[in-house]
Amino acid sequence: MPLILLTNDDGISSPGLQALREAISPLGQVVVVAPDRDNSAVSHSLTMNRPLRVQQLTESAYMLDGTPTDCVTIALGKILSRRPDLLVSGINAGPNMGDDISYSGTVSAAVEGTMYAIPSMAVSLAGEAPLDFSQAGKMAARLAAMILARGLPENTLLNVNVPGNTKISGIRVTRQGRRIWENSIQETLDPRGRSYYWIGGGTPLKDSSEDTDVAAIRADFISVTPIHLDHTNHEGIFHLRDDWQLERQDLA
Amino acid sequence: MPLILLTNDDGISSPGLQALREAISPLGQVVVVAPDRDNSAVSHSLTMNRPLRVQQLTESAYMLDGTPTDCVTIALGKILSRRPDLLVSGINAGPNMGDDISYSGTVSAAVEGTMYAIPSMAVSLAGEAPLDFSQAGKMAARLAAMILARGLPENTLLNVNVPGNTKISGIRVTRQGRRIWENSIQETLDPRGRSYYWIGGGTPLKDSSEDTDVAAIRADFISVTPIHLDHTNHEGIFHLRDDWQLERQDLA
Repeated sequence: MPLILLTNDDGISSPGLQALREAISPLGQVVVVAPDRDNSAVSHSLTMNRPLRVQQLTESAYMLDGTPTDCVTIALGKILSRRPDLLVSGINAGPNMGDDISYSGTVSAAVEGTMYAIPSMAVSLAGEAPLDFSQAGKMAARLAAMILARGLPENTLLNVNVPGNTKISGIRVTRQGRRIWENSIQETLDPRGRSYYWIGGGTPLKDSSEDTDVAAIRADFISVTPIHLDHTNHEGIFHLRDDWQLERQDLA
Repeated sequence: MPLILLTNDDGISSPGLQALREAISPLGQVVVVAPDRDNSAVSHSLTMNRPLRVQQLTESAYMLDGTPTDCVTIALGKILSRRPDLLVSGINAGPNMGDDISYSGTVSAAVEGTMYAIPSMAVSLAGEAPLDFSQAGKMAARLAAMILARGLPENTLLNVNVPGNTKISGIRVTRQGRRIWENSIQETLDPRGRSYYWIGGGTPLKDSSEDTDVAAIRADFISVTPIHLDHTNHEGIFHLRDDWQLERQDLA
């Protein structure tokens, strides 16, 4: 029976994780190792400046006072009896698309799994409250079954976004879109009249070329983007070597 | 005169940032916006669950109680009078190579700059204590001058690692190496006999193929890796479309 590790960034008590667990359970032995609280936008943070504690909640659920990446690391190194056959992170409450996946704890947990050569998938619900995770759960289970049967390309995870609309048009395999907006920053005064900033809000504008994750979700398609661990701009290598003559610079 | 934004992840009082500032200052008007404390391994975290405060230390140095990514966002949105012509993050005390750049606050600050279409570079000193940042500072200044003159390929930053050895063999333009080790986890008991975990330590084993950042540093070369914002596995798109027939799945 396949061993399946689940985690997320919204925290162990989030409804998205519960929905994922219910949907994935028929596929194998499921173990949950998730953060004790909301870790949205923690990205690929790894906690190295303090110790971490694990609390076992049930036979197959563990809570950790760390990030999603910590959860994957500790699960693989200390909790699971063997390497899992699949890692699924989610279901995130909100989309993880375009450049913004770089901020995402949900996607980063799947990155961490991929670094350990474990087939990994991040699932997010690109809807608005009140969120219904049932459709996204079904889709996660279908894709999970396909990954268990077929594996994934080397060093590659799947980043899946499911539209909030219950009438889904289909599936599109997409590329990661570009963000063309700026983080909005609210500036306010505290009770003592000193200013402070709060990052967030604003309306994201994104590259919505037809083959992107953003465009797929706008058209009510499920978006599946294969994400690679290698971030090298390989064409850029030739540019720096040939046009810049960087390797021929005299360092003296 | 070019406007140059400096930041880092080791914190505003780190010697690597001071060395960078000294080396870069002759190139233009330099403004430092850096975290108030060590932010190593915070990755691309963005602080959205609490307010952020900025403290101006000198005419051109600002301290923020947030992550390197917060520093870039707040600098661009609230501190600088115009878009900077260059962003340099570092000099990090320790290497940022291979898959591990994904954890790095230093590299993530340059990712954030690139998202705003600002030519950006991360610089790390791949040496051991006691660290001497002077050589890495010189190299950062040379590369900074080249970027100011030539620009960078679209959506691409430079990730630079400088060997600790003072006798540098030259420059290599490299690709990001793969990590083939696992995070080591120390398990210990607290004074009450309860176990806790601490992530870190261990000896990293990495893919050291000749064209990687890791191999360049081992051979005492400066490694310059062009890193792209787009993490899509573009070949993987065809695999999922053609081999998986993912877009033809019946969702009913």
